[in-house]
Amino acid sequence: LIERIRTRARVRSRDVRIAIGDDAAVLRGSEDHEALVTTDLSIEGVHFRRDWHSPESIGHRCLARGLSDIAAMGGTPTAAFLSLACPQGIDPKWLDRFFDGLLRLAKRFGVALAGGDTALSPTTIIADIMVIGRTEKNAAVLRSSARVGDQVYVTGILGGAARDLHALIRGERKLARDSVFLWPEPQVKIGRKLRTVASAMIDTSDGLSVDLAHVCLESHVSAIIDAERIPIAQGASLEDALHGGEDYQLLLTASRKTRVPRLLFRIGEIVSKKRHPVYLKRGAHVAPLPQRGWQHEM
Amino acid sequence: LIERIRTRARVRSRDVRIAIGDDAAVLRGSEDHEALVTTDLSIEGVHFRRDWHSPESIGHRCLARGLSDIAAMGGTPTAAFLSLACPQGIDPKWLDRFFDGLLRLAKRFGVALAGGDTALSPTTIIADIMVIGRTEKNAAVLRSSARVGDQVYVTGILGGAARDLHALIRGERKLARDSVFLWPEPQVKIGRKLRTVASAMIDTSDGLSVDLAHVCLESHVSAIIDAERIPIAQGASLEDALHGGEDYQLLLTASRKTRVPRLLFRIGEIVSKKRHPVYLKRGAHVAPLPQRGWQHEM
Repeated sequence: LIERIRTRARVRSRDVRIAIGDDAAVLRGSEDHEALVTTDLSIEGVHFRRDWHSPESIGHRCLARGLSDIAAMGGTPTAAFLSLACPQGIDPKWLDRFFDGLLRLAKRFGVALAGGDTALSPTTIIADIMVIGRTEKNAAVLRSSARVGDQVYVTGILGGAARDLHALIRGERKLARDSVFLWPEPQVKIGRKLRTVASAMIDTSDGLSVDLAHVCLESHVSAIIDAERIPIAQGASLEDALHGGEDYQLLLTASRKTRVPRLLFRIGEIVSKKRHPVYLKRGAHVAPLPQRGWQHEM
Repeated sequence: LIERIRTRARVRSRDVRIAIGDDAAVLRGSEDHEALVTTDLSIEGVHFRRDWHSPESIGHRCLARGLSDIAAMGGTPTAAFLSLACPQGIDPKWLDRFFDGLLRLAKRFGVALAGGDTALSPTTIIADIMVIGRTEKNAAVLRSSARVGDQVYVTGILGGAARDLHALIRGERKLARDSVFLWPEPQVKIGRKLRTVASAMIDTSDGLSVDLAHVCLESHVSAIIDAERIPIAQGASLEDALHGGEDYQLLLTASRKTRVPRLLFRIGEIVSKKRHPVYLKRGAHVAPLPQRGWQHEM
């Protein structure tokens, strides 16, 4: 569907530098800044379940998705807009707690909830969050600028959200209080630092295999990652770390010569474009890595 | 619900000049410009019906709502973002025609479709459009700045959308090809001209009685409008013109001393704050005008 929209959206504007296809759009701002814009849908039954997520967690996750997109551009989030459709008769207390979760996260990141729209929904709760951010002129880190020889890094452990989702599916109802699946933490601070380090960057919202493929396809390169180097969350499997989404870490590439922050995990390398976008190395064996991340996209 | 959100959204940011409660938010831009941001939900069964509206009309109306909000601020729209959730198995041809309608309007106004998000919807089609615009520094026309003694104007005839909606409800399926209910025209060009004329401005998306009340409540004044002066669409009733929404004309106030464009209809006057926000004068009789516009808001 994204492809259909992209090929259809041919109208250009001098105010738009980068449009559809990155974590956020880049709009020309003032002399020294540019604006970042991202939108993310959260739909009941697709992105969350009211019997799995507390109202606070749903509000938190809704905004976290947008903040993470701004982080993946190396930007600072400044304002958020919420479009919220609820079925008739929604409990006002549910809404209050939803806003508790959303606004607590907004406050921590100094982001203003600056507007939005509300409507009746025929059935389920639908929230669309738009986050606006800013970065220095031409500083936004795109997906399309990874180069052959660059090293591939992630900012933190992967697979924790998939591990917790599987626990919920198995019927377990007691997740850790700081479960990354319930309370994902947007990597805004490290994202800002990485804007001068990364050649390309994306957040791991759909899963490592899918998100790294996005970078490779946009950059016209391929990547080889090393199974032994992938930082796996406690209790998670390699599969969870490779294909589970919603960890909201940052995935980046950087030149071999660039000095990177120590806390990054180096997991692989960018190579010239091959038949598949991503390959997994296990010991001496290298094989194509299928894209089996969580794809909410149709 | 808007009130609940507004009172909850206390976090401030130096980048946000005007937040929730106007047609669009105003963000600080560069030295000489500021940015306008608006979001509008379009939900199947609430804002449109697939048996009433062609896919092209739904795409057109979805974007028109956002363009009209920017027009009501006196701004120029520059970019749009679309979040679209569709049920599984949606006909790709439906989507193509939806984009035909949306992009045709975008092109006419020089607006780029710069991004967005897509998702599966459990049941109905949900589109959230975000439109970004710009205007000169401190030039955005707000709802909150009408003053006692100002005259009240509208930019065009009212009640046409309500007339057509009633025809559809009665089972008539042949609307005029240029029906304002199917193909509303955002008043962007006249809105730009009015930014130096209007003391306050809003678009008539919810209906004259509701939208004028918004201006009065935000400006801490009341208004008296004259039934004989309201420009009523052919075949529409005074009720349609007073309470029918989705005509997407501009409703504005201007000082008595300001010279206004000739094509405006003068319909009333701003008076000091009384018990009700809006009063209707019929001959010698003046009575409170209830707010019975189309309220999609919960």
